[in-house]
Amino acid sequence: MALNIQNILSDNAKSMRRSAIRDLLSVANRPEVISFAGGFPNPSTFPVEDLKVIMQEVLEHDSTKALQYGPTEGNEKLREILAQRYIAQGLKITKDNILITTSSQQAIDLTSKIFISPGDTIVCGLPSYLGALQAFWSYQANPIGVPKDEELEVVVKTLIASGKKPKFIYTIPDFQNPSGITMDLKQRKMVLDVAEKYDLLVIEDSPYREIRFEGESQPLLYSMNNERVLLFGTLSKTVLPGFRLGWIIAPEQIIDKLVVAKQSTDLCAPVFDQAVITSYFEKGLFDKNLGKTIELYKNKRNHMLACFDKYMPKGVTWTKPEGGLFLFVTLPEGNDATKLFEVAIKENVAFVIGEAFHCDGSGKNTLRINFSFMDEERTEEGVKRLAKAIYRMLNEGK
Amino acid sequence: MALNIQNILSDNAKSMRRSAIRDLLSVANRPEVISFAGGFPNPSTFPVEDLKVIMQEVLEHDSTKALQYGPTEGNEKLREILAQRYIAQGLKITKDNILITTSSQQAIDLTSKIFISPGDTIVCGLPSYLGALQAFWSYQANPIGVPKDEELEVVVKTLIASGKKPKFIYTIPDFQNPSGITMDLKQRKMVLDVAEKYDLLVIEDSPYREIRFEGESQPLLYSMNNERVLLFGTLSKTVLPGFRLGWIIAPEQIIDKLVVAKQSTDLCAPVFDQAVITSYFEKGLFDKNLGKTIELYKNKRNHMLACFDKYMPKGVTWTKPEGGLFLFVTLPEGNDATKLFEVAIKENVAFVIGEAFHCDGSGKNTLRINFSFMDEERTEEGVKRLAKAIYRMLNEGK
Repeated sequence: MALNIQNILSDNAKSMRRSAIRDLLSVANRPEVISFAGGFPNPSTFPVEDLKVIMQEVLEHDSTKALQYGPTEGNEKLREILAQRYIAQGLKITKDNILITTSSQQAIDLTSKIFISPGDTIVCGLPSYLGALQAFWSYQANPIGVPKDEELEVVVKTLIASGKKPKFIYTIPDFQNPSGITMDLKQRKMVLDVAEKYDLLVIEDSPYREIRFEGESQPLLYSMNNERVLLFGTLSKTVLPGFRLGWIIAPEQIIDKLVVAKQSTDLCAPVFDQAVITSYFEKGLFDKNLGKTIELYKNKRNHMLACFDKYMPKGVTWTKPEGGLFLFVTLPEGNDATKLFEVAIKENVAFVIGEAFHCDGSGKNTLRINFSFMDEERTEEGVKRLAKAIYRMLNEGK
Repeated sequence: MALNIQNILSDNAKSMRRSAIRDLLSVANRPEVISFAGGFPNPSTFPVEDLKVIMQEVLEHDSTKALQYGPTEGNEKLREILAQRYIAQGLKITKDNILITTSSQQAIDLTSKIFISPGDTIVCGLPSYLGALQAFWSYQANPIGVPKDEELEVVVKTLIASGKKPKFIYTIPDFQNPSGITMDLKQRKMVLDVAEKYDLLVIEDSPYREIRFEGESQPLLYSMNNERVLLFGTLSKTVLPGFRLGWIIAPEQIIDKLVVAKQSTDLCAPVFDQAVITSYFEKGLFDKNLGKTIELYKNKRNHMLACFDKYMPKGVTWTKPEGGLFLFVTLPEGNDATKLFEVAIKENVAFVIGEAFHCDGSGKNTLRINFSFMDEERTEEGVKRLAKAIYRMLNEGK
């Protein structure tokens, strides 16, 4: 009998959606294509020489522990170091509020697993991080986008009135992916007020917070409410993504459930990588190297903005983010970035279609542009090509 | 309003069970306790000197790729190497049949995620690997144990007749965890015949296969049927567990679904660790070092068996495994290993209660003993203490 897997897939599998970004990247990976699509850090920021030293030390002095299975909760020293860093930002926590995860994508997955039952509602941004939407869909959740931050309460109230009380509000308060926007203090208070008033959890997904070029940091949501916020962090943008390390900070009763979920998911996060990163923090290299990364990305953003000013047709607008890795671009109303992608790929330039970040299928005239990965020369050439593709599309429309 | 998470946990979270092993380990971790509980490889088998060389080389020549995000499917070279190794064992596959996972525990999790809907039935051994049971429970599956291999068909038929057709048969054909038993060729054929006859998938979880001390290897189930078997492998027992690397070999249509599931789970397996292991295989170190590991564990098994022969009370029986990491011990009928654990821990010796591996709550008079981790002297002392605890329990019962 030939196997027909369609008959035996789970309900979860049927509601999974393939990542548009990942599939785009296969086209964008051709060497002649200048790709602004990925969310890749610049390899020049990887602390290669420091890692050479640290890895030898870990292998020399700590191999018995660093190459063995580790505790599900994560390396105890690393959790202590992270706790201290967050306490300095106003959080009232201990290491027991921290679970080390195998990437912050896993933080989203585990949180979804312990809170989402099929048909549950999640509230998120319009746009919001695609990988989070994918995780929500994979547990059969229904993410509902809030068009503007100030409309959060009315969306929540409407959902509750219709019997669809959301399980949590998913936010990326600092340099949001894909929009690049940062919530101000008033908006942060508003999110927490709504959460408190309607008894909701808030997820504060925070992969970009440390990459700030200018302006003042806003307080972490968790520092303003330590009862109902789950804070996700990662090393992927600040140190390197190849280790797959992130963390969840949450009230202990939630950490406790997440630990049980993680046991059956992968037992523990990469143990050697955790030992290396622990030493990296202990040696003070994190902050030292981060300063250089911020400087580099600030210059790259400036250069990208200068290229946009120089080449983009009238009617196209874009964000000027104070940090992070992305610009978000809006085409004149009525234009479709999916069509633009087809034109652009012929010009050998790629980006991510903004629609992919909109859980309701809106945002058709938007696109996300990464500025952290490409060098200056290729950036300018890529923006030129993109502008040419946009001109062509706009003129064909006439 | 104080948060009450009980009200908002998912149905999955409510059906999760905490790992008895992990919780036991917290007691067993006291330095005065001789613990046979964990499934830990011996740290002396970790290829520390080889890793020192390889890590420097990877950082010197490949840091741009090895520290960056990687493809969800895994390192292409590594997949090619693994494909060649399995082709040599009779599998008809290419690298496109392989997904690199973040540990073979993740292989179980992802497979559960794409196949299990709440209430689905799984068929497994009695006993079977606890981490697999935990993963099944975490997706609300109902694992049904087959008491003896030859009763597989009647169990499957009964389930189908009652409208509970199982999603898959979960097996560990080589040096099963916890029993240490290996399926012979007739049993392997029988499992595949049942799968074919009733149109079922078979999971061949294979973490110990390479650790064979004596006797002849049986063919992999996948080599006898490449339509409906999913084969899971790992480096945790053959190289080191601290990297968290495993893999799934499966028909391409299944790999395709697993890749989508993995995208939203952790994007990709640890990239640096994959680069290091790829080089480790390329340099021929895998087979060279594995020989030494097998020799070491064979001696440890022999020593453990000798200690059992020397100290164990009459009426206690145990397996003599031809490979793997574990002995499985049976107390005289009517005795309870949970009670024994309480006595044993006072004697400062620990093991895993066999009941934890029985999805139906049977196996109360069994326990699992690891022989790979402990040195010879502590092993003898530990078996002495365990025997003393058993004597005490047996005599109290009189």
